[in-house]
Amino acid sequence: MSAVDRQLEELHETITEAVPADISVTEVKYEGPELVVYTRDPKRFARNGDLIRDLASQLRKRITVRPDPAVLSRPDKAREAVMRVIPDEAGVTDLDFHEDTGEVVIEAEKPGLVIGRHGSTLREIAQEAGWTPEVVRTPPIESSTVSNVRNFLKQQREERRDILERVGRQIHREKMSDEEWVRITTLGCSREVGRAAFILSTPETRILVDAGDKPGSDDVPYLQVPEALGAGATNIDAVVLTHAHLDHSALVPLLFKYGYDGPIYTTEPTRDLMGLLTLDYLDVAAKEGRTPPYDSEMVREAINHTIPLEYGDVTDIAPDIKLTLHNAGHILGSSISHFHIGDGLYNVAFSGDIHYEDTRLFNGAVNDFPRVETLVLESTYGGRNDYQTDQADAEAHLKEVINETVEQDGKVLIPAFAVGRSQEIMLVLEEAMRKGEIPEMPIHLDGMIWEATAIHTTYPEYLRDDLRDRIFHDDKNPFLAEQFNQVDGGEDERQDIADGDPAIILSTSGMVTGGPIMSWLEHLGPDPKSTMVFVGYQAQGTLGRRIQSGWDEIPISSGGGRSERLSLEVDVETVDGFSGHADRQGLEDFVKTMNPRPEKILCVHGDERSTQELSSALYHKYDIRTFAPKNLETFRFV
Amino acid sequence: MSAVDRQLEELHETITEAVPADISVTEVKYEGPELVVYTRDPKRFARNGDLIRDLASQLRKRITVRPDPAVLSRPDKAREAVMRVIPDEAGVTDLDFHEDTGEVVIEAEKPGLVIGRHGSTLREIAQEAGWTPEVVRTPPIESSTVSNVRNFLKQQREERRDILERVGRQIHREKMSDEEWVRITTLGCSREVGRAAFILSTPETRILVDAGDKPGSDDVPYLQVPEALGAGATNIDAVVLTHAHLDHSALVPLLFKYGYDGPIYTTEPTRDLMGLLTLDYLDVAAKEGRTPPYDSEMVREAINHTIPLEYGDVTDIAPDIKLTLHNAGHILGSSISHFHIGDGLYNVAFSGDIHYEDTRLFNGAVNDFPRVETLVLESTYGGRNDYQTDQADAEAHLKEVINETVEQDGKVLIPAFAVGRSQEIMLVLEEAMRKGEIPEMPIHLDGMIWEATAIHTTYPEYLRDDLRDRIFHDDKNPFLAEQFNQVDGGEDERQDIADGDPAIILSTSGMVTGGPIMSWLEHLGPDPKSTMVFVGYQAQGTLGRRIQSGWDEIPISSGGGRSERLSLEVDVETVDGFSGHADRQGLEDFVKTMNPRPEKILCVHGDERSTQELSSALYHKYDIRTFAPKNLETFRFV
Repeated sequence: MSAVDRQLEELHETITEAVPADISVTEVKYEGPELVVYTRDPKRFARNGDLIRDLASQLRKRITVRPDPAVLSRPDKAREAVMRVIPDEAGVTDLDFHEDTGEVVIEAEKPGLVIGRHGSTLREIAQEAGWTPEVVRTPPIESSTVSNVRNFLKQQREERRDILERVGRQIHREKMSDEEWVRITTLGCSREVGRAAFILSTPETRILVDAGDKPGSDDVPYLQVPEALGAGATNIDAVVLTHAHLDHSALVPLLFKYGYDGPIYTTEPTRDLMGLLTLDYLDVAAKEGRTPPYDSEMVREAINHTIPLEYGDVTDIAPDIKLTLHNAGHILGSSISHFHIGDGLYNVAFSGDIHYEDTRLFNGAVNDFPRVETLVLESTYGGRNDYQTDQADAEAHLKEVINETVEQDGKVLIPAFAVGRSQEIMLVLEEAMRKGEIPEMPIHLDGMIWEATAIHTTYPEYLRDDLRDRIFHDDKNPFLAEQFNQVDGGEDERQDIADGDPAIILSTSGMVTGGPIMSWLEHLGPDPKSTMVFVGYQAQGTLGRRIQSGWDEIPISSGGGRSERLSLEVDVETVDGFSGHADRQGLEDFVKTMNPRPEKILCVHGDERSTQELSSALYHKYDIRTFAPKNLETFRFV
Repeated sequence: MSAVDRQLEELHETITEAVPADISVTEVKYEGPELVVYTRDPKRFARNGDLIRDLASQLRKRITVRPDPAVLSRPDKAREAVMRVIPDEAGVTDLDFHEDTGEVVIEAEKPGLVIGRHGSTLREIAQEAGWTPEVVRTPPIESSTVSNVRNFLKQQREERRDILERVGRQIHREKMSDEEWVRITTLGCSREVGRAAFILSTPETRILVDAGDKPGSDDVPYLQVPEALGAGATNIDAVVLTHAHLDHSALVPLLFKYGYDGPIYTTEPTRDLMGLLTLDYLDVAAKEGRTPPYDSEMVREAINHTIPLEYGDVTDIAPDIKLTLHNAGHILGSSISHFHIGDGLYNVAFSGDIHYEDTRLFNGAVNDFPRVETLVLESTYGGRNDYQTDQADAEAHLKEVINETVEQDGKVLIPAFAVGRSQEIMLVLEEAMRKGEIPEMPIHLDGMIWEATAIHTTYPEYLRDDLRDRIFHDDKNPFLAEQFNQVDGGEDERQDIADGDPAIILSTSGMVTGGPIMSWLEHLGPDPKSTMVFVGYQAQGTLGRRIQSGWDEIPISSGGGRSERLSLEVDVETVDGFSGHADRQGLEDFVKTMNPRPEKILCVHGDERSTQELSSALYHKYDIRTFAPKNLETFRFV
């Protein structure tokens, strides 16, 4: 009998003793980080209000109770019971019964009403129906990504349970080593922006944090060195994804091509956005005639292996590591990943990308932790002079540019990341039109912006408090404003828009490295009345950076492999202050007010100058040991 | 056709064009770093004096010419020809003809006379006999190690040729990566003494430098992390061994148990000493009831995979790395390993263990290199106050202690490493007796000291110039002095010696961690008239260190698994200044006079205080970037 089986047998006995005598416990097993308890008496279990909570705190594990398949009521009868309990206003749009696990997935427009105060309605459902309820939100704006992911996971339910059980047994395996050390290896994004990837390793466990690509470059993280996958993909115990931007996520599906078969921990919106962005990444590669590094099947593998975590959940992900994700304020679902290693041995936080101040979309990044000895901190705007304009000034500047452009009968072209900056700008424009600060006109959203927006509205819990509340009411949901038009008519529609009246166009990609923005450049690039407005960071080597710094002739592909040069007559403006990244001040403030203050900081995710200047400043101001690592270095802590 | 085969084909053509038309070249192949050229006209080849040298410099390769087996003269005829050419005074003791390669190995008491001025006699042998001569020295003192190694290699000749051919093709493979980086990973001996092991890695190549154990501890280097063997033993391209002491060599044979099948580069004496010391290491483990980590078969594998290099040979060991070994002055065959990486990209030197000043045995360490950007420097005596007594004062002190002990009718017990310190002390004692500074008395050598001494006399080229010259003449060879007695009669002989007249006993192990010194402790430990003299470094955690620092009761095993306590009445003295390690002054001088001065120094192979104090001092004195790494860190250069 393996150590894990012995452990489960003991848990089975302990739980049997802890629950009232009239509740039978038929099986106890791990599914990912959760302990699943099967019972023949699900209704009685649900009736004993605090039983699950008490068990969880006694065993220090996350616990799910499920009915033993033998005692399940028939789905049609259960459906009646479920619908009887849920109030009509909840707007249930789908019920999905899984007889193998006794779970019923309830999709509703107002999940809060299905959950009830402190979960009271959920408990009532379990009590009345004898099935274990699970709630998801009906997207207020239809999202093909969300529905694809949900349908896919529905089909994969059985395989996924096998994955989760395997992962669960891995997490709860016995420790194998008496040694204690903690190391971080930089596989990318050190003294550069892009290809984020780190290995966090202990004698017991190896975690890959992010696996991104580098915009405007063929550079990929050093996944093939022995420290990473060079020792075999099974050498990695878990992947943690801080957020969905491709410079952090693009190569996550590739891991499965290399044979990785373990979990990905991230937030639910990050999972969906990763699906959206990586599929588009493959699409763009194919359109540009490059061989994509993996195919869409690998994206599905990644989704199937994702174990979603909510902000603040403390989760065992290895025998010696607990992971907690915290809001990073950067994009939807973005997180700071906090690792507690050993029993109080050491704590490391990876900032991912952060925004310290609140934005229209998000609350500012969390910087309050139980303990952190080492912080791995992004440094995109870490340079000595990388102070950004205030958001209010930035918005005023943008409105001014728009008004000027409209006055001369031009159009405003804004290259933007589909995820994050686009929605921020949409909120600014919607308000400005509502308040009459800029003229009402169509706002065309090209590329995946509309789809990304739909995903935002599916997860309002991840948005800033007041925005969340507005989304809960259709008539106040700013993303439903009528100015917004999704460009779905291809080149014809673009031509019509370009030939038409003043308008604003938001289009991907955000750094002008591909996607529909290339087409917009052809339509509006030669137009001296129009304005191209950069609102986000343009990395070294991207076409966006080149246009921003004054190139007025750019190469474009004219099909058939030929390439021509396009003269830019369009006015080029940069509006600072909309970045999803903390600026130098924000980074300093993040560290200054961080609780507790870390002992060491690794400044990464910034060019050589930014990381070194930030490293030096943080050392001198706060007397913290700071480093500006190179790629492929390994730091040992403890 | 593989790239290497294409390369060899081109070399074949080039060589055919370069040699006179009457010399046929039948085959060209790699054996390790050498290019072997087979010819049907070996005599003509030999007659064209500078032909080989010219080819070598044209092709920038080390070249060996061998007769095509088809044209070989019969060994009995060849024997006559060979003996005709070699002068009688050379003292040939063995001729060994290898028909498969056309080589004749000549063992002679005076190899210099077989080689002749600038190799003229060798060329004459090739010319007359048509066989390719190879010369080795007949050990002036019989050495079972040397004869075992030579016999073993004789038997393995065919398998070894296969190994060399495979290694040769590996070395000359095409480069696979366009990237450029150089990294060093510390697998041991950082902030500690013992378990030396480093990985030097480039995108192309991974070299393991040393693989030792840690005296007085069970700690072994971190060979199982993915950076080392965790990614598979075949992930290592080459092993370089700086010297034979077990804290650098003990686990080299273990690599073959793990499936390593590549070359070990080291000096010839280090190969033999490694064989001696690792076999003894297995023996000691077995005697102490521990399971040896590998068996003697693995030691033979290690010897079979060793490619011996001479000091100063610049050798291709990978497509992007050239290795040169330089005298380190520490023990017989000890070397500083200098790596030239890429085409002028970067240079790293690993000091191994060094002695900067000349000693009686060795010339001081070389610190003159074409280029060195990073030096990995030992720090055994790197502490602020780690200044050692001068050798002359140390010798006077030792003689004083001996005279005092003899006056009170006691015996002098000196624990010493078999290799290095023992021979140094032997030279001191021999001279002191010859000059009448101490009374003539027997000097008993216990453990492997005599055998190690025999190996020293086999390789006089590796000894200090004047000592080498003395060994060339039997009547002046100090190691042949009649006072020396090898203890080979076991416990009876030890008892007799202990009961007898004043005498000096040198016995292993040097840090009192096992071996016959344990028996001598029982014999002489309770004797207040005798003196125990420490002449070498005693590592933390060793019994030697404890006795040195005042323990007067020690645990001894009394057989049958019981253990008793032994009261020490023996006088304990420490005579500084005989260390094989540079002291703090020596380390500073090594760096100060080093040419060129390195940009970075990693201070390793010293306890935490020593490495940090040396690191700090070198930084402040010479404005060099210095580090005191921890184990398991990775530094990136370039």
